[in-house]
Amino acid sequence: MAKAKKRAGRPTGATGEETQARLLEAACRFFAELGYSQASNQQIARAAGITSGSLYHYFESKAELFAAVYRDVLGALLEAYSSAAADRDTCVEQLCEGIERVSNLSRERPGLVEFVATAISEIPRHEELESRLLEEHLELFAFFHRLLEEGQRRGEISPDVDLEAAVGTIVACTSGLALQRRALVNEDEFAALMRGFQQLLRGQFFTPAS
Amino acid sequence: MAKAKKRAGRPTGATGEETQARLLEAACRFFAELGYSQASNQQIARAAGITSGSLYHYFESKAELFAAVYRDVLGALLEAYSSAAADRDTCVEQLCEGIERVSNLSRERPGLVEFVATAISEIPRHEELESRLLEEHLELFAFFHRLLEEGQRRGEISPDVDLEAAVGTIVACTSGLALQRRALVNEDEFAALMRGFQQLLRGQFFTPAS
Repeated sequence: MAKAKKRAGRPTGATGEETQARLLEAACRFFAELGYSQASNQQIARAAGITSGSLYHYFESKAELFAAVYRDVLGALLEAYSSAAADRDTCVEQLCEGIERVSNLSRERPGLVEFVATAISEIPRHEELESRLLEEHLELFAFFHRLLEEGQRRGEISPDVDLEAAVGTIVACTSGLALQRRALVNEDEFAALMRGFQQLLRGQFFTPAS
Repeated sequence: MAKAKKRAGRPTGATGEETQARLLEAACRFFAELGYSQASNQQIARAAGITSGSLYHYFESKAELFAAVYRDVLGALLEAYSSAAADRDTCVEQLCEGIERVSNLSRERPGLVEFVATAISEIPRHEELESRLLEEHLELFAFFHRLLEEGQRRGEISPDVDLEAAVGTIVACTSGLALQRRALVNEDEFAALMRGFQQLLRGQFFTPAS
């Protein structure tokens, strides 16, 4: 694109992938802030610097756009948790390091954690989202299940801990932490909560350190 | 009311309080299932056996109705947690017993936990709800804060645990558990998750019992 063609406030020279990335980023923010029903394709397109007509070249419906954001965000979370798992030896440290990395991810990508919270309540409420995201949703459960299963095999988790329930508890708690993000003033407060959860996982909450 | 006046499918002999209780119960279910925007006064009124016109004798707006359900549900949760606190000696056992009682409450009042989950995501999204429920929302935080503060004073919580963050973590986790309720098939599964959280609080998750 020739420089002369640039106009202030209007993106030029954007490839399809760049536009798509901007759409995902804008959609993530608007869905997180307004919810699935209230966020409009027009707002999202405008924030990404395109017309709502062009948006349909990228995503054929609002549901498709939401699903694409969800897959993108879930991928980032899984990457944070699995890279942490690769770098630590014990189950509890793998989880804690994963939580630490999600905390950092939240700083890098504002709105990501809030989107997760929105998705948790919106997906079961909209058939067009649930049908698209049923399998994706299970990936996080499957990941934690493998992690805890290996930990239990190594003897780090008591055999009388019900793995299915334990995975549900961890997913529930991390979802709740995501949900709480909105009520917090800044990322430092969120990081403090995430650290509180790490203390809980390590069993340090109610056992005074000597 | 004379028996002769009764007609099948139509509530008769209801006092104002009975109608109000039925409205709260129906509103709790519809808000939990459909969300604040999608649930309609008509549906709720119909389920409670009155006309949507009469609903306004009880609650002047949908926001007022939602706020009344929220206060009712929060009252039930606080009662469960504070009665548990009175019956147990240590902070961790007070919390665990509270969680057990909320589990039981969820069996007794289907939809209550799902309403909590809905409220967490809906309140910050609607100014008319947030303005009405700002103080109520803080009651649960204040309750947990007192509980943990007393525990820390008794030496049950390490002095290097940040109480503010710890309260946030506990509220986040319990909110997340409420949120997860919708994805579960039945109350037994929910109870298993709530028990998983108790193990986490007791530090029994990653420390094999001997």
